[in-house]
Amino acid sequence: MISIKALEEKILKEGQVLPGNVLKVGSFLNQQIDTAFLKEMGKEIARLFGGSGVTKILTVEASGIAIAVAAAFEMEVPVVFAKKGGAKNMSNDRLCAEVKSFTKGTVNTISVDREFIKEQDKLLIIDDFLADGNALRGLLSIANQAKATVIGACTAIEKGFQGGGDALRSEGIRVESLAILDEMADGKIKFRLQNDVM
Amino acid sequence: MISIKALEEKILKEGQVLPGNVLKVGSFLNQQIDTAFLKEMGKEIARLFGGSGVTKILTVEASGIAIAVAAAFEMEVPVVFAKKGGAKNMSNDRLCAEVKSFTKGTVNTISVDREFIKEQDKLLIIDDFLADGNALRGLLSIANQAKATVIGACTAIEKGFQGGGDALRSEGIRVESLAILDEMADGKIKFRLQNDVM
Repeated sequence: MISIKALEEKILKEGQVLPGNVLKVGSFLNQQIDTAFLKEMGKEIARLFGGSGVTKILTVEASGIAIAVAAAFEMEVPVVFAKKGGAKNMSNDRLCAEVKSFTKGTVNTISVDREFIKEQDKLLIIDDFLADGNALRGLLSIANQAKATVIGACTAIEKGFQGGGDALRSEGIRVESLAILDEMADGKIKFRLQNDVM
Repeated sequence: MISIKALEEKILKEGQVLPGNVLKVGSFLNQQIDTAFLKEMGKEIARLFGGSGVTKILTVEASGIAIAVAAAFEMEVPVVFAKKGGAKNMSNDRLCAEVKSFTKGTVNTISVDREFIKEQDKLLIIDDFLADGNALRGLLSIANQAKATVIGACTAIEKGFQGGGDALRSEGIRVESLAILDEMADGKIKFRLQNDVM
């Protein structure tokens, strides 16, 4: 099982703080994937949300897919990932939401074929990063349009100082993050103390 | 272990042939992911390329990531995925290639941080679909720029009638696909007989 400490140490060791509050963790999470570490993160998500009746994991392409698959292998549920933009192999009957990307500075429409999320689904929403919370809100909107139940949301790394996670929590949504950064000023990282996460 | 027959049956049962030679397998591969089935595909890729010294799996976002991660879990190697477009968390020192998307009809620049592919790497290139072979050629170009060795390429579903896979094979590259469709006319699917794939 991953300990929160292992992820925090990895962020401190391999993460790079770039200008504009961008944290680069490309060496293990969202460009190169440390597979053994990813598997441990999947186990920790399964521990946090096991027994809560999750029927499906919902994420958004691209970098949410790896951690969603790792968790889904442990929880033995399917993954659905929302797509950005359009393609020939998409149906017209889609659930859509607008999402602003913090790292790209663009607004994307994300969408899921309506057939893949049903009213009886109990969803766990997963993403790699939580900053302003825009991606999670887009996925919540899609879940709500499908009238599915949202059990909660889980991300690998939350930039707590941007407030997106706490805003969602204050609205009564269970949001877990394997590591929460409360400060990232001048390249110095300070983590939030958490009791739930191991 | 997945049998080629299981994947072929899944394509026949759940796949939809759309106009313009588009095969939609969103129900289990590239929108919704059948996690148990994905795990079996990963095992089959590990069986095909096990013992060939692969040090890293290279894929491209977005729908290549899931199958690359599934194979990487079995082979216990890291995954690197090429990104499309630009973002604030990317470095300037990147290996780039142009790729035309068959399903989207657009040309994308895909790129990988140079630090993640080294000359000593022995790469297995993985993607979900192989049609014209443009994505594989883009990834091969990136591997060649890094002077890495390419052990081979593996895709889940190859549209053999588009010729991309056979062209690469004729150039001496080992290309495996878990299922090869040699015909898809009028919505009727005919698979190629393969000896290597189980």
